[in-house]
Amino acid sequence: MIMKASAIDAFMLTSPSTIKCLSGYYHNFEAGPSPFQLIPAVLIIVPNQFMGIVIADNESFTSPVPGMEISVIEYVSYIYEKPLDFTNQFLIQLHNMLNQIGIDKMRIGVEMNSLPFVIAQSLKTKYTGIEFVDITAELSILKAVKDADEIENIRKATALSDLGQTAVLKHAQIGMTELELFNLVRLEIEASVGTRVPIMVDLVSGVRTASGGGIPTNKTIKEGDLILSDLTPCFNGYWGDSCNTLAVGMPTTEQKRAYLRVKEALNTAINAIRPGIKASDIDSIMRKHVGDFPHHGGHGVGTLYHENPRIVPYNNAELEPNMVIALEPAIYEKHFGIRLEHMVLITEAGCEVLTEFQHCFEF
Amino acid sequence: MIMKASAIDAFMLTSPSTIKCLSGYYHNFEAGPSPFQLIPAVLIIVPNQFMGIVIADNESFTSPVPGMEISVIEYVSYIYEKPLDFTNQFLIQLHNMLNQIGIDKMRIGVEMNSLPFVIAQSLKTKYTGIEFVDITAELSILKAVKDADEIENIRKATALSDLGQTAVLKHAQIGMTELELFNLVRLEIEASVGTRVPIMVDLVSGVRTASGGGIPTNKTIKEGDLILSDLTPCFNGYWGDSCNTLAVGMPTTEQKRAYLRVKEALNTAINAIRPGIKASDIDSIMRKHVGDFPHHGGHGVGTLYHENPRIVPYNNAELEPNMVIALEPAIYEKHFGIRLEHMVLITEAGCEVLTEFQHCFEF
Repeated sequence: MIMKASAIDAFMLTSPSTIKCLSGYYHNFEAGPSPFQLIPAVLIIVPNQFMGIVIADNESFTSPVPGMEISVIEYVSYIYEKPLDFTNQFLIQLHNMLNQIGIDKMRIGVEMNSLPFVIAQSLKTKYTGIEFVDITAELSILKAVKDADEIENIRKATALSDLGQTAVLKHAQIGMTELELFNLVRLEIEASVGTRVPIMVDLVSGVRTASGGGIPTNKTIKEGDLILSDLTPCFNGYWGDSCNTLAVGMPTTEQKRAYLRVKEALNTAINAIRPGIKASDIDSIMRKHVGDFPHHGGHGVGTLYHENPRIVPYNNAELEPNMVIALEPAIYEKHFGIRLEHMVLITEAGCEVLTEFQHCFEF
Repeated sequence: MIMKASAIDAFMLTSPSTIKCLSGYYHNFEAGPSPFQLIPAVLIIVPNQFMGIVIADNESFTSPVPGMEISVIEYVSYIYEKPLDFTNQFLIQLHNMLNQIGIDKMRIGVEMNSLPFVIAQSLKTKYTGIEFVDITAELSILKAVKDADEIENIRKATALSDLGQTAVLKHAQIGMTELELFNLVRLEIEASVGTRVPIMVDLVSGVRTASGGGIPTNKTIKEGDLILSDLTPCFNGYWGDSCNTLAVGMPTTEQKRAYLRVKEALNTAINAIRPGIKASDIDSIMRKHVGDFPHHGGHGVGTLYHENPRIVPYNNAELEPNMVIALEPAIYEKHFGIRLEHMVLITEAGCEVLTEFQHCFEF
């Protein structure tokens, strides 16, 4: 599709999310960019001909799909016996890989946002005939439809969200801080995988729920508080995403009514999902039930926690089988907020709710 | 210094660590790159004339140093009423800022590794006379010497390491997993700040200590295990770093002897630190005490957890006042490993040990 539209000869991909999606290569990013790497990896693809990845020598990679051959070249990254030289080492190995292909005069599809200038310049200096074509927008559309192995990863990430929401119900107690609760939840998620797990999180209580989210703090959970927990863990490079809101003690009638309206909005939207329906229609169903709220009604989920298809008022794109979306209608009042979110896989027949956790307001 | 060496007219800085160092701007990176930003920020400096930063509209920034004027321009990042357009919005605001300066024909100091190609190309298209000069190496040397406000941040980050090491001693118990221990330690660190804290960590027990480190797992801590905990938390963009090794139950004579040798190596190196001594001499003192080990003897710490000056065999650069380094001699045997690490500020008179935690092997 991209090749036809733009007459691309080869691809040089640099964003971790695209590289994960197309090759399976992933490494944990929780500690920020490594001081020993230029970028985590670059992926080269010449359709029907070559697929290769350049990674640091302290990383490991094996093709996740049997039969998919990916050439791997490692470059010297961390070293203490000599000065660090990872940028040059990376470029040398990248050129070694490109020499095998002969890319001069090719039109190369790149991701302009994540392509470091140092790589672009090095290639343009050596291969004066090459041309870079930004394919970010096309890629983001292609990535919306998931392969079987991607769906498998997303199921596992969603199961981590489920586990986290169940842990919130299990551990939430009056007198505990938001951070204490979050750490118990995170431990259950990490223990189930057996290693650290990157997590994006909104975990707020009481009046903090009115703004829809935030990072957990030392605020103490009090009788009568609502707790809003939006848990977005990353498993093997794929994200799960779910949100629950629960009442600590007796909710008010207004809160109960709001919860039921949000739940109904979510269920009605899920029931309407089928291939061919517009993203904007799903968004509109939710806003009709709960009134407007100041964010998207939902979003695609994959190697990014927010990707296509966006479930938003302007997006008239039609949903297709094997897209994965999260829906998250919400009501925010002056003193409290309620948001409920499920992950959904679009199927030929309609959809499958990937989230197994059942929303639970009073517990 | 950079200006003189390369006749630079202005700087356009793009790496989060450099931007933090020069402007104070920082945002938590634990959830990976944002799907709504091109890069977190760009910092423009025309020496003695202008300092400005372009950031996303959902971020906030105020100059951390009274009297340091920094012009802030925000760009539209997350939006749901219209298609995402953050790359263009970013470029528009960057050009707005550059138009105030008039950069045509200037030599611009940049960080080639973190400068996205899309920005470089946009500028070169509009300002055909500009020239980009990579100043990464010069910056990394300049950043080694810390300002007073940086040292203050590093002290706070080091205090988080201290707190974490004390928490390891407090919570470590036979029958607990490495992940359970890590989560109790992380909770104490996060609770002391009141929000999430990025942490790089080695936390391993038993035979896992022999390889020097690793991410905590579900491995159970057993009687007779050593625990190696290297805690590297990030506070307001600055890193702390310390390592302790402790014995659960009675250590063997060989382990005790190794611990004392590593401790002596660390103490002897610290006692030798003074302005003018070579980094390689400090490294050599440690290796003389404990024999060779397969990593650096130490490293600078600041807005990167590993920066100049590297304490390594080849580095003959002299230590200077207001450099901050971490020293981490180690002994790795077949079945166990011991590493001890302190953070140290080089002073006019010698040095100040920033780490307040006292290494503790038997407890």
